[in-house]
Amino acid sequence: MSLSEFELIQHCFAEQAAAYTHPDVRLGIGDDCAIIGPSSGQDLLLTVDTLVAGVHFPENLPPYQIAGRCLAVNLSDLAAMGAKPAWFTLALTLPEANETWLREFSRGLFALANSADISLVGGDTTRGPLSITIQVHGYVPAGRALRRDGAKPGDQVYVSGTLGDAGAGLKLCLAGNRENSDFLVRRFVSPTPRLALGQKLLEVASAAIDISDGLLADLGHILERSAVGAELQVDWLPLSDELCELVGQNEAQKLALSAGDDYELCFCVPVERAAKLELIAEQIGVTLSHIGVITEQAGLRLINEAGQPVTSAQMGYQHF
Amino acid sequence: MSLSEFELIQHCFAEQAAAYTHPDVRLGIGDDCAIIGPSSGQDLLLTVDTLVAGVHFPENLPPYQIAGRCLAVNLSDLAAMGAKPAWFTLALTLPEANETWLREFSRGLFALANSADISLVGGDTTRGPLSITIQVHGYVPAGRALRRDGAKPGDQVYVSGTLGDAGAGLKLCLAGNRENSDFLVRRFVSPTPRLALGQKLLEVASAAIDISDGLLADLGHILERSAVGAELQVDWLPLSDELCELVGQNEAQKLALSAGDDYELCFCVPVERAAKLELIAEQIGVTLSHIGVITEQAGLRLINEAGQPVTSAQMGYQHF
Repeated sequence: MSLSEFELIQHCFAEQAAAYTHPDVRLGIGDDCAIIGPSSGQDLLLTVDTLVAGVHFPENLPPYQIAGRCLAVNLSDLAAMGAKPAWFTLALTLPEANETWLREFSRGLFALANSADISLVGGDTTRGPLSITIQVHGYVPAGRALRRDGAKPGDQVYVSGTLGDAGAGLKLCLAGNRENSDFLVRRFVSPTPRLALGQKLLEVASAAIDISDGLLADLGHILERSAVGAELQVDWLPLSDELCELVGQNEAQKLALSAGDDYELCFCVPVERAAKLELIAEQIGVTLSHIGVITEQAGLRLINEAGQPVTSAQMGYQHF
Repeated sequence: MSLSEFELIQHCFAEQAAAYTHPDVRLGIGDDCAIIGPSSGQDLLLTVDTLVAGVHFPENLPPYQIAGRCLAVNLSDLAAMGAKPAWFTLALTLPEANETWLREFSRGLFALANSADISLVGGDTTRGPLSITIQVHGYVPAGRALRRDGAKPGDQVYVSGTLGDAGAGLKLCLAGNRENSDFLVRRFVSPTPRLALGQKLLEVASAAIDISDGLLADLGHILERSAVGAELQVDWLPLSDELCELVGQNEAQKLALSAGDDYELCFCVPVERAAKLELIAEQIGVTLSHIGVITEQAGLRLINEAGQPVTSAQMGYQHF
């Protein structure tokens, strides 16, 4: 006997959700609203992202990976502000209630949710063109969230991990060349939200953002909100061997600056806290790269190791 | 000079949102997450609903009305649990950033949001087939939320307003006969979330739900979660004159039982609090109708004024 649609969705989500419940959740799935008893002394952070098939991911991406990616990009926003994940909702629009698809989607969703200690408390399933909207909630000690508007001249600019990989991975997916580099494809499909790093950065960073639209665009948001500028050393950009081998050094730098989808953190740290930052990097085992400095002068300037300005023409851009 | 897409969306949402900010909002639109400092002594309630063009509303519905309806159906979930609205997020997927469309959508959204004292704190705008996902948050004094699972045998069953109107209104919209009844069309397009009533029901009701899928289905959820049954008087169902004139008494009763989209509240009240309920109805000026009683015997039975069972065949149903 095949399960009815309702039972299917119930089984794929409500039963899985019951496996882990955040202690503040008073009532999860199954009533008109979820009920939360918020922790005191904490600020509640929330963010929502929609991913549309054919726009934010290739239509043929396996449902396990779609689910993981959707949750990961939301968790990344919590990471960027130093929040500890708490609970989330899922609004899923899909063309048909296909059992295999739903089971795989659910498996991918809860694999990441359980590892991030975030519990599903509600949602909505509707019929229509495939799209997924996830809203995540997390906690930060009151008044301590890492915002975009705290960067000061002299602060050092850092990024986690390597940049540009996901942009190349997406191109491989779209061109049907996934076999060319498992590593790069995985960097697009399964980004790692830097949750442990984000929470540790509360102790040292003055501003932070996650890199979804590319380093230039996202660091640009910090500069704008903080009313400062920055000077970046293009030769200090962290590039993976896999990326440089596939596209060469110059193209790799371009992808690192503007491709997006890496979901690494870009953040600013006052010089006197740089030693503490090194300890943090060792503790959590994430590579952090110093890539530049915040300046009083507005705008974002790229320079090479000789200290010479790198023009947009040299990088092959029209604008940045 | 025409506004860029970003500026357009900024203008339509972020600037409008700034007009009213809930006191608990520490940071609204413009960073990776919104930041809330939750009120103490309160439970936080949240619910999310997606409305897809061509599925949940006719594709040609004016954007002002689409926005109002989307927010209203979410607010109705808060009303059903007795919550006071606080803040919300909007995830909007649309085929193109059409300025007229966005301005009208925003106008409809904030007309209702401002009247309900709920502030927009975040969102996401993506390109794709038109769909709207709204998540609303509200407060109820800790431990006091009206749930579906509190109905007891002997409790009286009530509904607010009139039933079946929205179902007839939707049919008029789909058939292109909106001019046949402004009233019925408005009941579909602009449902009234019963927020004041819901908050007052915290003092008297044992269980409540909003009627989105039809009285039988939604009361069914209360019965299931409360492990009770109910007996409904079909002749006591509140029907509008407009509905009876358009479709006749028998069809009106059928729509009242199963059409949905009315977003009235269905709730249960212990007999000894019936007098207090009457005072509440007077205070807030909403018509409340006593339509039946909760029973120990499981299942939902329909009877007529003579106390005779009404069969599904008599009502013209295959099942209910």
